Amino acid sequence: MTVQETLLARLAASQAEIIAIRRHLHEHPEVSFKEKTTAAYIRNFYLKLGLTPVPYGEGYGLAVDIDSGHSGPHIALCADFDALAVQEDNDLPFASQNPGVMHACGHDGHTAYLLILARELNALKTQLKGSIRIIHQPAEEVSPGGAKGMIEAGVLNDIDQVLGLHVMSSMPTGSIGYHAGETQTGRSNFTLTFTGKGGHASMPQLANDAIVAGSYFVTALQTVVSRRIDPFDTASVTIGSFDGVGSYNAIKQSVTLKGDVRVMKETTRKTVRAAIEQIIGGIEAMFGVKANLDYDDNYPVLVNDATLTASTVAALKAAALPEVSDIFDCGPQDPSEDFAYYAQEKPSLFFYIGCAVPDGKAHPHHSPDFLLNEDSLIIAAKAAGVAALAALDIK
Amino acid sequence: MTVQETLLARLAASQAEIIAIRRHLHEHPEVSFKEKTTAAYIRNFYLKLGLTPVPYGEGYGLAVDIDSGHSGPHIALCADFDALAVQEDNDLPFASQNPGVMHACGHDGHTAYLLILARELNALKTQLKGSIRIIHQPAEEVSPGGAKGMIEAGVLNDIDQVLGLHVMSSMPTGSIGYHAGETQTGRSNFTLTFTGKGGHASMPQLANDAIVAGSYFVTALQTVVSRRIDPFDTASVTIGSFDGVGSYNAIKQSVTLKGDVRVMKETTRKTVRAAIEQIIGGIEAMFGVKANLDYDDNYPVLVNDATLTASTVAALKAAALPEVSDIFDCGPQDPSEDFAYYAQEKPSLFFYIGCAVPDGKAHPHHSPDFLLNEDSLIIAAKAAGVAALAALDIK
Amino acid sequence: MTVQETLLARLAASQAEIIAIRRHLHEHPEVSFKEKTTAAYIRNFYLKLGLTPVPYGEGYGLAVDIDSGHSGPHIALCADFDALAVQEDNDLPFASQNPGVMHACGHDGHTAYLLILARELNALKTQLKGSIRIIHQPAEEVSPGGAKGMIEAGVLNDIDQVLGLHVMSSMPTGSIGYHAGETQTGRSNFTLTFTGKGGHASMPQLANDAIVAGSYFVTALQTVVSRRIDPFDTASVTIGSFDGVGSYNAIKQSVTLKGDVRVMKETTRKTVRAAIEQIIGGIEAMFGVKANLDYDDNYPVLVNDATLTASTVAALKAAALPEVSDIFDCGPQDPSEDFAYYAQEKPSLFFYIGCAVPDGKAHPHHSPDFLLNEDSLIIAAKAAGVAALAALDIK
Amino acid sequence: MTVQETLLARLAASQAEIIAIRRHLHEHPEVSFKEKTTAAYIRNFYLKLGLTPVPYGEGYGLAVDIDSGHSGPHIALCADFDALAVQEDNDLPFASQNPGVMHACGHDGHTAYLLILARELNALKTQLKGSIRIIHQPAEEVSPGGAKGMIEAGVLNDIDQVLGLHVMSSMPTGSIGYHAGETQTGRSNFTLTFTGKGGHASMPQLANDAIVAGSYFVTALQTVVSRRIDPFDTASVTIGSFDGVGSYNAIKQSVTLKGDVRVMKETTRKTVRAAIEQIIGGIEAMFGVKANLDYDDNYPVLVNDATLTASTVAALKAAALPEVSDIFDCGPQDPSEDFAYYAQEKPSLFFYIGCAVPDGKAHPHHSPDFLLNEDSLIIAAKAAGVAALAALDIK
Repeated sequence: MTVQETLLARLAASQAEIIAIRRHLHEHPEVSFKEKTTAAYIRNFYLKLGLTPVPYGEGYGLAVDIDSGHSGPHIALCADFDALAVQEDNDLPFASQNPGVMHACGHDGHTAYLLILARELNALKTQLKGSIRIIHQPAEEVSPGGAKGMIEAGVLNDIDQVLGLHVMSSMPTGSIGYHAGETQTGRSNFTLTFTGKGGHASMPQLANDAIVAGSYFVTALQTVVSRRIDPFDTASVTIGSFDGVGSYNAIKQSVTLKGDVRVMKETTRKTVRAAIEQIIGGIEAMFGVKANLDYDDNYPVLVNDATLTASTVAALKAAALPEVSDIFDCGPQDPSEDFAYYAQEKPSLFFYIGCAVPDGKAHPHHSPDFLLNEDSLIIAAKAAGVAALAALDIK
Repeated sequence: MTVQETLLARLAASQAEIIAIRRHLHEHPEVSFKEKTTAAYIRNFYLKLGLTPVPYGEGYGLAVDIDSGHSGPHIALCADFDALAVQEDNDLPFASQNPGVMHACGHDGHTAYLLILARELNALKTQLKGSIRIIHQPAEEVSPGGAKGMIEAGVLNDIDQVLGLHVMSSMPTGSIGYHAGETQTGRSNFTLTFTGKGGHASMPQLANDAIVAGSYFVTALQTVVSRRIDPFDTASVTIGSFDGVGSYNAIKQSVTLKGDVRVMKETTRKTVRAAIEQIIGGIEAMFGVKANLDYDDNYPVLVNDATLTASTVAALKAAALPEVSDIFDCGPQDPSEDFAYYAQEKPSLFFYIGCAVPDGKAHPHHSPDFLLNEDSLIIAAKAAGVAALAALDIK
Repeated sequence: MTVQETLLARLAASQAEIIAIRRHLHEHPEVSFKEKTTAAYIRNFYLKLGLTPVPYGEGYGLAVDIDSGHSGPHIALCADFDALAVQEDNDLPFASQNPGVMHACGHDGHTAYLLILARELNALKTQLKGSIRIIHQPAEEVSPGGAKGMIEAGVLNDIDQVLGLHVMSSMPTGSIGYHAGETQTGRSNFTLTFTGKGGHASMPQLANDAIVAGSYFVTALQTVVSRRIDPFDTASVTIGSFDGVGSYNAIKQSVTLKGDVRVMKETTRKTVRAAIEQIIGGIEAMFGVKANLDYDDNYPVLVNDATLTASTVAALKAAALPEVSDIFDCGPQDPSEDFAYYAQEKPSLFFYIGCAVPDGKAHPHHSPDFLLNEDSLIIAAKAAGVAALAALDIK
Repeated sequence: MTVQETLLARLAASQAEIIAIRRHLHEHPEVSFKEKTTAAYIRNFYLKLGLTPVPYGEGYGLAVDIDSGHSGPHIALCADFDALAVQEDNDLPFASQNPGVMHACGHDGHTAYLLILARELNALKTQLKGSIRIIHQPAEEVSPGGAKGMIEAGVLNDIDQVLGLHVMSSMPTGSIGYHAGETQTGRSNFTLTFTGKGGHASMPQLANDAIVAGSYFVTALQTVVSRRIDPFDTASVTIGSFDGVGSYNAIKQSVTLKGDVRVMKETTRKTVRAAIEQIIGGIEAMFGVKANLDYDDNYPVLVNDATLTASTVAALKAAALPEVSDIFDCGPQDPSEDFAYYAQEKPSLFFYIGCAVPDGKAHPHHSPDFLLNEDSLIIAAKAAGVAALAALDIK
């Protein structure tokens, strides 16, 4: 048996364990930057194996090194473990026991498959080459994300390549999606306050109506995407919050808007920001209001390394996993993802494991009825295992 | 001594009582439609005089008739007694003892002067003609107002003319302002919800952005006043509340706006409403959103009777009150006032008693630092007394 | 017979002459600042009477003094004589013989009545007091108008009061309208060019779309009237021309807009101009376009002197002209009028002579089918005569 | 010598002829659908060779068949021959002699190389396989374009594959650009009139301002691209003409806009059109104006066949033309091109021959100073020759 065959067989034998871990985590979700008991659970798992996780950064992130003792590449496998501030609306025996918190994005599954995969890789470590760093990261969901701090604390030092994956309820279970190059959008967020002058609704000439200024801003903002971006590029600008809550008969003094920007190139990010700032300046001049802008360029564009993508896809196809019916280029994906920070530093690949439940419903990520097909978890473990071995150049 | 001289002398002797009553009421304010103890206070005042107030309508409104026993006109004198949901910010020994509630518009003063004026008119009633109905009305501040219900309950039955006044911190103490014809704006309010489709900020094509629809609505709404109203007419349209509160990365499903409309003609009110409805229909068609509109045509334009205004002003000038240095046409006033409902029914006059405190500050009505100069209260009592006698055709 | 009775009788006897002069002028209209033959006709009329008209200003304006030889007020009577660039669409025996030019505002009638009135006043001059200056002004229709230049040339030197009138097809023949105070709107005009950068329609990011900038300007411009002007004031702002003519597939480099502003107070004029300039600055900042603004504050608000209005109206009512059935306060009028320049300098009155044709059609001023009822011309002559005598304090 | 070597040698020997033909055509440009003498020139060229061109469609399009007499594929080579309504601003001895008309897009070069290539292919025809149809098409520049009519007339009957190319002043001379799949934008154009109601600028309430309606339309139109299209898709919407030309003091009754739409998918074309129509409906409802829309879905997205692209690129690389330094995937191109109609019907390839003049200036297509480096023409001829032989499967 090849190392790959051995690994896949061991993983197959551990499928029930993966599911059990995932259910345990699903019952006990914790929101980003607050994942104390989750991190303790992970730590204990490794301690029982005789491995000692090392904390990185100020959050609850930790990593474990599996060293083959042989020369070879140094790779990292990553998974995130935070949950969302969402109230679960699924009738599951293992539904969230924490009110208002839910693993609605599948990070419970990510953590579960990676724990077992780490255990099995560790068991086979003398047959491997180089080393594998297992990274369990917190706070993927909330800017600035957990990856950035772990990287700053050195988690990628001496690492050559990074692998990660995400379960996807929009893709059928049994499918694996990938895309080379720009793959997930970069994101910026901003908070913008326009301050005019309050007053009585019957005397507009004595006031300076911040709702009017804010509304004209929103309409002018549409020209960022419609007129200032190359039609062949990708950009979206959304005002997700317009807080002008007031009363009938008073003119609002100020309004606060929250904005979201998505791009597929870092140059586009700069163009969009300059355009937004220009429009804000125009609104200030036009209405005599004062703008206060807090602009946060956060998650980068996630860029998958073309070579690593190609070699991994080749390995996955060659592995011919019985659970996998389709390996396809899924094109770029709209959401942003803080794995992008790893990919900024090292040649990386982030790919997708279909996890759709075959009930005809969407169960979108972040929704109260998010569901993942647990059959996807063994696929995740096996695919990540195949990818890791390929990255280590092991048959 | 004429009846007027007698009345004015008796009022002058009661100035301290007026102030005492006003301070008592100021300490114990109650918001609109909740003025239970205020109404009880008023009722007791009359009961002690041997007069029996009659309740009108479903709120705490009440009225007392002073019948001269002689033939003659039937007039009404009105004052309102509700307070506002404002936290007082004045350092007064008699400051509001009810947290978050304040007589910030001067209705305490209105009630105080009218109680004493009623007492003195009652004392002189055999020297009068016809009858005087003293109307104490609740809930002037909040649509639908207190006047409407009292009128529907019959408080103006058999009444020929109605008189009312308002203390005005924007006018110097010692001045009396008046205006014939259209004098205070009519008002409409509306609540408008646009419902689109929520979604992820990175996928606008799958959502229908209610903040965008609401913002374009606000910009189009400006054309109501700018293009659809005769420049010689008066209209204002304000969006006082734009509730599109959400998060950075989700597209809002719906927004709720609150609007305020002011006009000086009932025909303009209709034009404005039709224009707003037309624009809402346009937004629905343009963005495919669903609008829900709750439109409330409330306070009418306050129209002072020209003849009653002229005769009252003539009487006030002839009376040459020593406290009054100026009687002037103050032109139309921006705010709306539910006395307008009386004036819709009967020839009426609503005029203004300057109450500015000479400290160089504005102390605007409805503000936490609203102040009235108590010297204005005897002016209010005397001016209303002169006006009442004139309306009864008594020298 | 009083002087007034004599004058009115002489005018009555001259009615056919007035109509004949008006028809002659109607056949031979000349546009503003080009009224060479019209001015020669007027000059000859006076020369035949032994009077010598004096030219004022650089256009064709002229004036004639009728001096009573007695002490007394110095008044002026004014009429304009220019026509419009309109192609007449009336089937009249005396229709315009000049293609594309028409007396479509009634200035032919103004000139006709004033010539005859001047002749009759001159005939009676020894019975008058003071003096009367007859002013025939050119170019009322086109900014900067004819009045301004004549005033600068001294036509109002030593004049105490100025009287003028306009025939009005919107008022019934037999009616005389008047209004004291602000009576016709002041006007400003502007030409505004936004220059961005041209380009190919398929590459907006390389261009800067001037049509987009101009369109956002127009929408923001609505806030001048809707939010920045006291609802009790009067203002209108119109973009009458938006020249963005181009082709399908090129992005426009520049657009040129023409604007019209109307106000009833000079302070409002300043507020509006400042607001427009502020919005232009906002558009420049918002879109990075360059604005070029040529702003022309032209005709003032026409303000009728209250005293002169009252005394003239009293005289007109007392005269009880048999042709006049109604003398009414017509309120302020929308259009602007360069008589306003006279009224800026001297106490003045500009009033209105109904001239509606009773055929049920509107025949609005400036339209190709403008018509005046010639019965109105004798009323104009008599009313101006009565007004002049009253201004001279002659019974 | 292979056939390819023979062909390339013959073309090399004909370089001066290609340039001479190009210069002749450059001197005598004719605008789209009016290319009478150009078509006659082409026809004569073939007649002299003993070939008889066949007209296709109602314009001046024509085609010549080169039949090898052997079995094999039937391919077509296309070039366009119309010029633009542009006044040339180049100082060339062979500059346009037709005022206001210029070969400012390079179609003179296209025609020149194809005539000579056709001659040389014809000379070698017995060594070829199948047949080659040489298509000379008129009117590429103006919708509906010349291709559509020729196709309807049967010019692609029995044709298996179509090849075309365009000189590109944005690419260096010596480079050949290509792209598989969606390669040039599809285009739609529309003419839109909004009709409101004219009126006097001082009385907006009596009018319905078409400039205001048109301007709000332009601002709302920005949401088509910004909110209704997948950020990963391509779309642009431009208003290239806004005709609201009028005067200062009249409110415009109607405005006419011209619009341009570019897309890279036919589904996007439908989405854009539906969105524009929805917004137009919204403007009608919002302002009570009447819209008249003339919407022309013209040039399709140009889709290059992936297989044909790959085989042609392979042949071009294998040919190792000495004049060619770079063969690169140039990505999608912004402009639209009516070759797209051929590609809708048959597997086709449209590729690009760099023609930049090395003077550091842009000389963009359609500009008065467009210039092509004549060295590019032999590259065009050779590259098209190589491509044609490859398509015929001839070494």
